[in-house]
Amino acid sequence: MNETVGGIGEFGLIEAVTKGYRQGADVLVGPGDDAAVVAVPDGRMVITTDLLIEGRHFRQDWSSAYDVGRKAAAQNLSDLAAMGARPTSLVVGLGVPAALASEWVHELARGLQDEGEPLGVSIVGGDMVQSEKIVVSVTAFGSLEGREPVLRSGARPGDEVAVAGRLGWAEAGYAVLTRGFRSPRAVVEAHRRPLPPYEQGPIAAIAGASAMCDVSDGLLSDLGHIATASQVVIDVRSGALAIPEPLEAVAAATGLDALSFVLTGGDDNALVATFEPADVPPGWTVIGSVAEGNDDRPPGTVTVDGEPYAGATGHAHFRS
Amino acid sequence: MNETVGGIGEFGLIEAVTKGYRQGADVLVGPGDDAAVVAVPDGRMVITTDLLIEGRHFRQDWSSAYDVGRKAAAQNLSDLAAMGARPTSLVVGLGVPAALASEWVHELARGLQDEGEPLGVSIVGGDMVQSEKIVVSVTAFGSLEGREPVLRSGARPGDEVAVAGRLGWAEAGYAVLTRGFRSPRAVVEAHRRPLPPYEQGPIAAIAGASAMCDVSDGLLSDLGHIATASQVVIDVRSGALAIPEPLEAVAAATGLDALSFVLTGGDDNALVATFEPADVPPGWTVIGSVAEGNDDRPPGTVTVDGEPYAGATGHAHFRS
Repeated sequence: MNETVGGIGEFGLIEAVTKGYRQGADVLVGPGDDAAVVAVPDGRMVITTDLLIEGRHFRQDWSSAYDVGRKAAAQNLSDLAAMGARPTSLVVGLGVPAALASEWVHELARGLQDEGEPLGVSIVGGDMVQSEKIVVSVTAFGSLEGREPVLRSGARPGDEVAVAGRLGWAEAGYAVLTRGFRSPRAVVEAHRRPLPPYEQGPIAAIAGASAMCDVSDGLLSDLGHIATASQVVIDVRSGALAIPEPLEAVAAATGLDALSFVLTGGDDNALVATFEPADVPPGWTVIGSVAEGNDDRPPGTVTVDGEPYAGATGHAHFRS
Repeated sequence: MNETVGGIGEFGLIEAVTKGYRQGADVLVGPGDDAAVVAVPDGRMVITTDLLIEGRHFRQDWSSAYDVGRKAAAQNLSDLAAMGARPTSLVVGLGVPAALASEWVHELARGLQDEGEPLGVSIVGGDMVQSEKIVVSVTAFGSLEGREPVLRSGARPGDEVAVAGRLGWAEAGYAVLTRGFRSPRAVVEAHRRPLPPYEQGPIAAIAGASAMCDVSDGLLSDLGHIATASQVVIDVRSGALAIPEPLEAVAAATGLDALSFVLTGGDDNALVATFEPADVPPGWTVIGSVAEGNDDRPPGTVTVDGEPYAGATGHAHFRS
């Protein structure tokens, strides 16, 4: 059975895929109607969306469909955690070539499902259309459970900056893969599938985080978003950033700088937040501090050990 | 100023585009953070998503960016109306070539905004990535305002079938455009931009519609969804379907069948619903009736004047 997407047809494939979706307690109307209906007990829905394009965000020869599904879910669910929310549900828009094996779609769906299921996330709807390149669009929803959302704009001078989750692993994996290697396995796996510290989002919110952000563009770039939105200056202490052994190994093998993986690598979906010093909860590592801007360091500036960082600060996306 | 998407860069373009978005009363946190937060006063969020791909759902030489924006918004907002919901907000994922004029993105955003604004819809977030072909992914949200959602599964024998909105216009426009013509202008415009009867969704729900569906695949195909979900048989009376003059003109010029535009044409985003005979509200035209299935006509069957319809029943999407 090497059935293709085109052979089965849109409706048949949608039916086959959605049959496997388990619907959680938050789902009032699941897939199969014009729209889904999801419960939002506190009357405030948290919403985020991301688009992944084949060749740009993943390659079929580097990542399995299952990994693409996990990654597409992860980067959205991580954005919800960064607001202090508990993820509840998601919808997926899928563009696929007619000649693609239908198994690819089933595996993608399984990855989406497996990433969300431990968090209680249901896949409540979607769309499937024909496309030359594979397109995966995920929009995910979360509940604040009565808490206030943690924005990027709340960092205050005197706050400490702390991270939860991994930094630089996915970037080191990308460096390895682009050079034609498949090891160290830990960083290659990290490129294929992030491990966001979802539970730390609500924990940080409850602890009183003043600002929070998902690290998807790179630590310095995403701290720049907090510094700009909060009109403060942020300094990162490089000595506080652990350089894990696999990153050292990749740096040694490639001639790249291990610290730059940590400071500028995206796609691990760590969380970075600011707290009053007494509020930093367990599970978070303090890596820097927040200060007022001045003439030398205007608001929005991010420094490393008090100095501007010499390298690129993160993904520039469209610029090449 | 012939600036391209790649020249401005992702962050700059997102900032420029979102600056023009007006945020309505339902928006608690708008664009610019990790996620948006939207109020859902009755605690139930209605959610729908659609993916449009250049070359498949629109062509740059047939539709302006503004029209693509209106159409992308319309087909999602119409799905919300088909649940009986009032649309409140949407997010948009956009894949664009680096060489695309940034003006195209601004015009798309203007179209999205203009389609939703009369309904009070705010654009609360999005994503923008690089892509060879243009990809527009819209996910839209609505409020039931305390009403129950109108599903596809509630049609009962003895109900009448009624429609609100136009049928066959977009299909006639497509027939004209594929033959290299640009008139009649009314049907070409209808292909570029549907005019869904949004307000009739909540009106039908309040009137007691037993089932409702957005006509996006074609009347017979979408009635098939209601017939299957409700386990009933639906008969359409062709004499009850008005054939508008522009459709007759296209049929005469192309040799196609005007009634087939009405029965099988998609993309006008009319609404079709079932009601107890006394409940059909003003603004709706009765076109058929609901009956029990039997051995000759098993549940899920849709007939025209009591007979199976000879032509194709609607878009088959992946099959070609």
